[in-house]
Amino acid sequence: MDTLYVIKVGGNIIDNEEKLASFLNDFAQLKGLKVLIHGGGKIATEISKGLGIEAKMVDGRRITDTETLKIVTMVYAGLINKNLVAKLQAKGCNAIGLTGADANIIPANKRPVKEIDYGFVGDVDNAKMNGTTLSLLLKTGLVPILAPLTHDQQGNMLNTNADTIASSIAVALSANFDVNLIYCFEKEGVLDGEEKVIPSITHSYFNELKNNGVVVAGMIPKLDNAFAAIGKGVSSVYIMHADALPALINDKKAVGTKIS
Amino acid sequence: MDTLYVIKVGGNIIDNEEKLASFLNDFAQLKGLKVLIHGGGKIATEISKGLGIEAKMVDGRRITDTETLKIVTMVYAGLINKNLVAKLQAKGCNAIGLTGADANIIPANKRPVKEIDYGFVGDVDNAKMNGTTLSLLLKTGLVPILAPLTHDQQGNMLNTNADTIASSIAVALSANFDVNLIYCFEKEGVLDGEEKVIPSITHSYFNELKNNGVVVAGMIPKLDNAFAAIGKGVSSVYIMHADALPALINDKKAVGTKIS
Repeated sequence: MDTLYVIKVGGNIIDNEEKLASFLNDFAQLKGLKVLIHGGGKIATEISKGLGIEAKMVDGRRITDTETLKIVTMVYAGLINKNLVAKLQAKGCNAIGLTGADANIIPANKRPVKEIDYGFVGDVDNAKMNGTTLSLLLKTGLVPILAPLTHDQQGNMLNTNADTIASSIAVALSANFDVNLIYCFEKEGVLDGEEKVIPSITHSYFNELKNNGVVVAGMIPKLDNAFAAIGKGVSSVYIMHADALPALINDKKAVGTKIS
Repeated sequence: MDTLYVIKVGGNIIDNEEKLASFLNDFAQLKGLKVLIHGGGKIATEISKGLGIEAKMVDGRRITDTETLKIVTMVYAGLINKNLVAKLQAKGCNAIGLTGADANIIPANKRPVKEIDYGFVGDVDNAKMNGTTLSLLLKTGLVPILAPLTHDQQGNMLNTNADTIASSIAVALSANFDVNLIYCFEKEGVLDGEEKVIPSITHSYFNELKNNGVVVAGMIPKLDNAFAAIGKGVSSVYIMHADALPALINDKKAVGTKIS
């Protein structure tokens, strides 16, 4: 099977013109088959403010109401996704920008209302995920660029976590490719108690670090997504700095934290 | 060769919830291969106003400055395109939403500055147009939904006339399909001096109607686009009401104005 890199890049790179330019240069030159999943960044919040729409928060969690759904659909699928595509096309990378609604790539369900009504937020319907269209696009030399949006299969777009999308896409494509899933973020990898990068992490070591309070907050769901993907056919998962992508993929160096 | 319908629908249908629902019901049920090109509508103007960005006009023509380009990229490629895709997916139509930047489907050039600087407006680079990716998508059962945006091949999106995109796409795909290009608008077809639909129009009759002042304003460029497509491999072009699409395509009835 061909090797495929499923790469997730966060909003902190999307928001910074200089970092974004450097990332896109690197990404365009990565050898082999690749898929990019991008986060949202602060642009949606700025556009919301400009339109006088206030962010709705419940218990510290952002709620996607009707107006917010319009904003994220505009900003993620329109502004961010198409600018990434145009810039990659200019660098000779045959990018195609998509959401989970396009070609029904990521069927999802609106999150059920329990203690909190998250609004138009999607949970990926993994049982219905199907990598056929993405595989076809990849095999014709296209580079899919995915925005963090899915659909409820009933006519509505849904706001969806980009880390989860990356994991679901990686698992679905592992039927047709040898998939490496890479979460890029602003640090060199998962850090130990002395702030040093952990080169390799097992599930039992993760549990130990979690119990000791070394791994906290946003890193926990990221690692949960990572271990879930490994258990479902993905060959390897890396958590690493975006700057190290060429070293990992083109030069086959050991960088960041490898989950296995 | 398989028959393909390239259908352009204007902003007046996009803007009207009831008309749009009826159009999407019809479109989803059209038999055979199809591509949809949608216009922009008034939503972009409303969002601009909301953000305090005033439409820039020079000699009555709208100028796409940097801020306006952001708005149309958000609204056309994001809000409108993805809502069409999600709604069609819910009706069992395997829609995939794209712009001319995606997969380099429509290479374009920024319009040169002469008397007027139109800003980020694209003229389609027809010599570089290539129907390969769209043909591949169509042959796998996907239904491409195109927003009226292209790219300058140097990293920028460009605002582009939807009628022109429809014509360019129809010509490019005529190498692989028997293409029928259909311009849907709010009237039954091209009207004669007595407001009756002209069932069939030749180029010499078009010139006569133009000289007599029967065909005026926006209809002239639409017919120019129509005749240009006919001369370059497209089998037929129709100008007609959107409501008559099922009659034309599913029931093979003579409706609207046929250009030949």
